[in-house]
Amino acid sequence: MAASVPVEKTIYLGAFAHCVALAELEIVEKGAIGVDEHGVIGFIEKEVDVEDVRKRHEGWNDAKVVSVKDGFFFPGFIDTHTHAPQHPNTGLFGKTTLLDWLDKYTFPMESSFSSLDKASRIYTNFVSRTLSHGTTTCAYYATRHVEATNLLADICLARGQRALVGRVCMDTLSPEYYRDESVESAVRDSKACIDYVRSIDAEGSIVRPIITPRFAPSCTAPCLAGLGKLAHEADAFVQTHVSENTSEIALVEELFPDSKSYTHVYDEASLLTPKTILAHAIHLSTEERKLVKERGSKISHCPASNTALTSGCCPVRELLDEGITIGLGTDVSGGFSPSILEEARHAIWTSRFVAMGTPAAAASSLNNAAKLSTAEALYLATRGGAAVVGLEDKVGGFEVGKEFDAQMIRLGSVPEEGDKEGVFGEDGAGGPVDLFGFESAEEKLEKWMYSGDDRNCVAVWVRGRLVHKTTRYTA
Amino acid sequence: MAASVPVEKTIYLGAFAHCVALAELEIVEKGAIGVDEHGVIGFIEKEVDVEDVRKRHEGWNDAKVVSVKDGFFFPGFIDTHTHAPQHPNTGLFGKTTLLDWLDKYTFPMESSFSSLDKASRIYTNFVSRTLSHGTTTCAYYATRHVEATNLLADICLARGQRALVGRVCMDTLSPEYYRDESVESAVRDSKACIDYVRSIDAEGSIVRPIITPRFAPSCTAPCLAGLGKLAHEADAFVQTHVSENTSEIALVEELFPDSKSYTHVYDEASLLTPKTILAHAIHLSTEERKLVKERGSKISHCPASNTALTSGCCPVRELLDEGITIGLGTDVSGGFSPSILEEARHAIWTSRFVAMGTPAAAASSLNNAAKLSTAEALYLATRGGAAVVGLEDKVGGFEVGKEFDAQMIRLGSVPEEGDKEGVFGEDGAGGPVDLFGFESAEEKLEKWMYSGDDRNCVAVWVRGRLVHKTTRYTA
Repeated sequence: MAASVPVEKTIYLGAFAHCVALAELEIVEKGAIGVDEHGVIGFIEKEVDVEDVRKRHEGWNDAKVVSVKDGFFFPGFIDTHTHAPQHPNTGLFGKTTLLDWLDKYTFPMESSFSSLDKASRIYTNFVSRTLSHGTTTCAYYATRHVEATNLLADICLARGQRALVGRVCMDTLSPEYYRDESVESAVRDSKACIDYVRSIDAEGSIVRPIITPRFAPSCTAPCLAGLGKLAHEADAFVQTHVSENTSEIALVEELFPDSKSYTHVYDEASLLTPKTILAHAIHLSTEERKLVKERGSKISHCPASNTALTSGCCPVRELLDEGITIGLGTDVSGGFSPSILEEARHAIWTSRFVAMGTPAAAASSLNNAAKLSTAEALYLATRGGAAVVGLEDKVGGFEVGKEFDAQMIRLGSVPEEGDKEGVFGEDGAGGPVDLFGFESAEEKLEKWMYSGDDRNCVAVWVRGRLVHKTTRYTA
Repeated sequence: MAASVPVEKTIYLGAFAHCVALAELEIVEKGAIGVDEHGVIGFIEKEVDVEDVRKRHEGWNDAKVVSVKDGFFFPGFIDTHTHAPQHPNTGLFGKTTLLDWLDKYTFPMESSFSSLDKASRIYTNFVSRTLSHGTTTCAYYATRHVEATNLLADICLARGQRALVGRVCMDTLSPEYYRDESVESAVRDSKACIDYVRSIDAEGSIVRPIITPRFAPSCTAPCLAGLGKLAHEADAFVQTHVSENTSEIALVEELFPDSKSYTHVYDEASLLTPKTILAHAIHLSTEERKLVKERGSKISHCPASNTALTSGCCPVRELLDEGITIGLGTDVSGGFSPSILEEARHAIWTSRFVAMGTPAAAASSLNNAAKLSTAEALYLATRGGAAVVGLEDKVGGFEVGKEFDAQMIRLGSVPEEGDKEGVFGEDGAGGPVDLFGFESAEEKLEKWMYSGDDRNCVAVWVRGRLVHKTTRYTA
């Protein structure tokens, strides 16, 4: 299985949109993006003459053309935090909060991944699901099983989805039936997964390993230290959870009485590096935020999960203002959707609750500065996420020299007489967004942002390779 | 066009679920619901022998059988507050709050409904959309145009969707280009719509009129009083907005300095009756809540809209505990989805923000009593809504003597090898819910609740009449 699949030289023609800066969305209505046989963007035009575009670029005369109708190209989404084995638990959380949720739903499901058949079925399905939502890069937590974790990497590589794949480490405070036996085995098994992932994709162009201590409460200090050492030796990415829930924070204080804070626990184990992704980070103190910033570690914001488990509202705008790098994470199955578009909406909602301050507050006392804009939420979903997973030079936006990770978005056109049968384009495949023809380009994008779903994502490319399509995709 | 369409005597076979009390969801795995030629439920069985069911009920020998696979029957949803003409603005709100949102998006769109062609296209499409999401009853705001409002009633009747259809009254503080000319014309035009709707459905079995002052700021006191008088003379339902946004509340105080509160403004105009639906009711004082309760008026909770426009979080659990009758409203296009299932999720999220109290609070200080459960949110979406629109004796649950307003829910089964192509049942038509086969009946329902969408709603009935279906419906 080759990490680098050759692709046909292609010009992507029609509207495209992407984030050029945190608060700035560029929408180009007559665009052309030329993508070479390595999947790299060779040229971009913004006022294109369709007839002329092939001729004007030397060497592109015979290029294939893929046109988008009733929609636009958008950069692939980047999911900076999700748990692939928890996919079957999506939507199951009831009124639990983090710690009882782990015991009730998560540990029993994850422990069953000792069965490779089960792992294969669930991972195959989950990678299909995330791709169908336009997720071109995903930072996955697997389970503590080496073989099943390696299988997830195989599946991502075969399907062509960029992934960070991590074996979960947990040597304490986890159930007897589901924990690493010792510090040594935890580190050894983690190393085995790193070696395997690097053996199937030496350059890490599609799949890369990531060291994954579940979170401080389920790792002893020696285990964390061993993983920190491994991270430096292997120059590997690290992902874990921090400051998600106040009971969890209290537990960490109790378990690590000599550490200044939850974040310091990781720092003391040399686990805070520029290649570290910290999920949640809701309740960080000023000092902890400073430490994260100093170490250059990144944050994965998971608002849907944080609301579902009533963990709290991460004050994302403050963290952004402090210069911390942030992306979005679906955090399945604390989160209830594998869609980063849905997550971007929840980033908006959570920022609005932060703006309101208390449930009863409203317009007159709004802290408008806390509200994320549509552009900002989409930035977190693409460029922000790219920077979190160390791919800011390769993906996240459309620029010459970047690789073409993209989704084709199509929206539904309402017939002049209205949709009398309620079929919305062959059995609902047209998706939930209705265009009446009088919308501006900005309004089309807003409609997609606030009511679009996977039906609007009709094709997905990674490095120029078509990795997902529906029948509404016509090349 | 007949309001009463004869239907074939039918037995609905298989699992069904419904709310039997506020916090109690009943799930029957081997059910049978017999529906007669008037659309009325004649019998219900809960441990059915498939072969036997027709024989055991006299007169049902020749009944048609409709079976549900991979899913269940659920009562039709009731949307107690939405604005049909704002459908094309769905998803457009940016960072506006109520009063600037009205000026920027709402009034320009609504005023264009002087064109019946435009009204026909948009209303046809919106009724199709709401039906496709399983909404069997809808309380619609139209515009101030008599003809377009009557057209909406015609469309609902033709499609068989139960509806309350209201011409919007507004004789002040609205733009010059979109307001009622006088108190007299406002009352006269409202009466014209009442008369029309009653002329096409004399018994009100499908469509009924509803008197609709937009909200206190856009109606003069004489206009409100005139509508209050009309409501009593015509024995009609009333719908309006109350206490949505703190700036709006301040404006009402300024406009009605002699009234004790926003709610009292309506009471003084005799507009608070047991047939009155008040949307939002976020910031009501204790005294206002008492008044609502005393008058027997109902509340439509619209959490998606309230979050989108940062209006605030309605403390629904407190209102329920006080004995107020509450349903859910999508409030398109303040709300960004025509789906009551999505609205039920937002009722859950909003209740969680109320539970957290402030964005930074969390598990340790949670006010768990404020959290709505899945059962409670679904109750509001069905039985609660039925009581809000005065149909509690007819719909909202499955009981002998009630009319059969229902949706067939189908969920997706994951193949043993996982869905390798990511097509999820012919181009995504299988919908977003993945069943692996090990879920309990309760878990299936939770999965639908937290990640289902219109694709899972494969058929919809009102009074036993099939009013929407997709190709995944097989009778």
